[in-house]
Amino acid sequence: MGWSLMELKENERIDDLQCHGRMLIQNKSMFCFGIDAVLLANYAVVNEGDVCMDLCTGNGIIPVLMEAKTKGKHYTGLEIQKESAELARKSVELNNTADRIDIVNDDLKNAVALYKRGRFDVVTVNPPYMNENHGIVNPSSPKAIARHEICCTLEDIISTSSALLRDKGRFYMVHRPQRLVQIFELCHSYRLEPKRMRMVYPSYGKNANMVLIEAVRGGNSQLTTEPPLIVYNEDGGYTEDVLRYYREGGEDER
Amino acid sequence: MGWSLMELKENERIDDLQCHGRMLIQNKSMFCFGIDAVLLANYAVVNEGDVCMDLCTGNGIIPVLMEAKTKGKHYTGLEIQKESAELARKSVELNNTADRIDIVNDDLKNAVALYKRGRFDVVTVNPPYMNENHGIVNPSSPKAIARHEICCTLEDIISTSSALLRDKGRFYMVHRPQRLVQIFELCHSYRLEPKRMRMVYPSYGKNANMVLIEAVRGGNSQLTTEPPLIVYNEDGGYTEDVLRYYREGGEDER
Repeated sequence: MGWSLMELKENERIDDLQCHGRMLIQNKSMFCFGIDAVLLANYAVVNEGDVCMDLCTGNGIIPVLMEAKTKGKHYTGLEIQKESAELARKSVELNNTADRIDIVNDDLKNAVALYKRGRFDVVTVNPPYMNENHGIVNPSSPKAIARHEICCTLEDIISTSSALLRDKGRFYMVHRPQRLVQIFELCHSYRLEPKRMRMVYPSYGKNANMVLIEAVRGGNSQLTTEPPLIVYNEDGGYTEDVLRYYREGGEDER
Repeated sequence: MGWSLMELKENERIDDLQCHGRMLIQNKSMFCFGIDAVLLANYAVVNEGDVCMDLCTGNGIIPVLMEAKTKGKHYTGLEIQKESAELARKSVELNNTADRIDIVNDDLKNAVALYKRGRFDVVTVNPPYMNENHGIVNPSSPKAIARHEICCTLEDIISTSSALLRDKGRFYMVHRPQRLVQIFELCHSYRLEPKRMRMVYPSYGKNANMVLIEAVRGGNSQLTTEPPLIVYNEDGGYTEDVLRYYREGGEDER
């Protein structure tokens, strides 16, 4: 019923997230969410009453999933690309969650001015992974901006996250393990101490292609490396670990 | 035959390493080698003609295994504890490998003065893991010195390794993943760029308890996280991956 109120543009589609009835509007010509976003939304621990910020929120997949799965008080999604932010806002309306999710179309470099320092309990981010920007055909294309560090660097993201978090607030990021050395250095220098890490491997015997990280603002330096997360079984299907993340009401598994 | 020439003291025993006939003399009252040393000796890549240094060599397990398994030209084991260095030297003699292995009883903080900078192609180290030194009953005991950063810190080890290695020389370390943030920071600041990492998990579903690291002096920053190494099967026996490391002539598996 509500759907008829939504004006879908060309290339837009509505996906059922199979999670508490939540829907997400995506645009095929732009960046669509992948398993990394689903893993991050499940990896992040949000306690009852937490105020949460998702940087580089794109089409809003992470606040939409976290609002459905956790008992946080409020979720903000910050996105620099106008078209992505508009998509995210439409999904929030479609799900009738505008009272709990704000989508803000702004540059994360303005976030500290927009919000008070230390205002958030949790910051999540699924940032652009690539810092090698040479050879990009169209650096202003939505997909290039979502994938490459064109509008912000990893340091912008980590310094902003640290400023937004309260003392002992939690930072969650999914990224490529190739950049782990730099991630750890930046986190440590901005007082986001890595506390938990889970390596994600596409299948048995393959190199890791994603890493999930929890860092605590002002935490002590003691990192736990959790069991490997294998995505695909030998038969090509998702493993039980990953299926659990996709299942409705994943929060009680955490 | 050769054994009768060896004078074994109380608590000393000769272990057959099941590797090209090599033997190792250990003292039960001191630090005996564990699986970490075996994994490190297999993880390290030694090319034909390489000149190798093993810091914190203890009873010499790593140079003894590497001399047997690789085609390096020469191996030095540096050990601060006199009794451990003597044990290591006895093993080298027992194996008739004194022409290829030198055991040196000295402080690694003197290593740069003892050897030329950039002299080694490969540096390996299985260092003391623990930096929390409070509560040690006897800080001068051989086991405490082998386990805790009493005689040297992680920074001493990494700075020394960097100074001893030639440009593009390779550094191999096994350590606790709890300290990975500090390890990466120190490696990076001493120009030992982490290139490969393998997490070691005691069994399926458990947190990692060891990490194997390869860093290259002056390398570029791009880390590969290799497949997880699981030590024990569900039935309590070693996995095939680990058994391969213990098997004689492991080098052709690498």
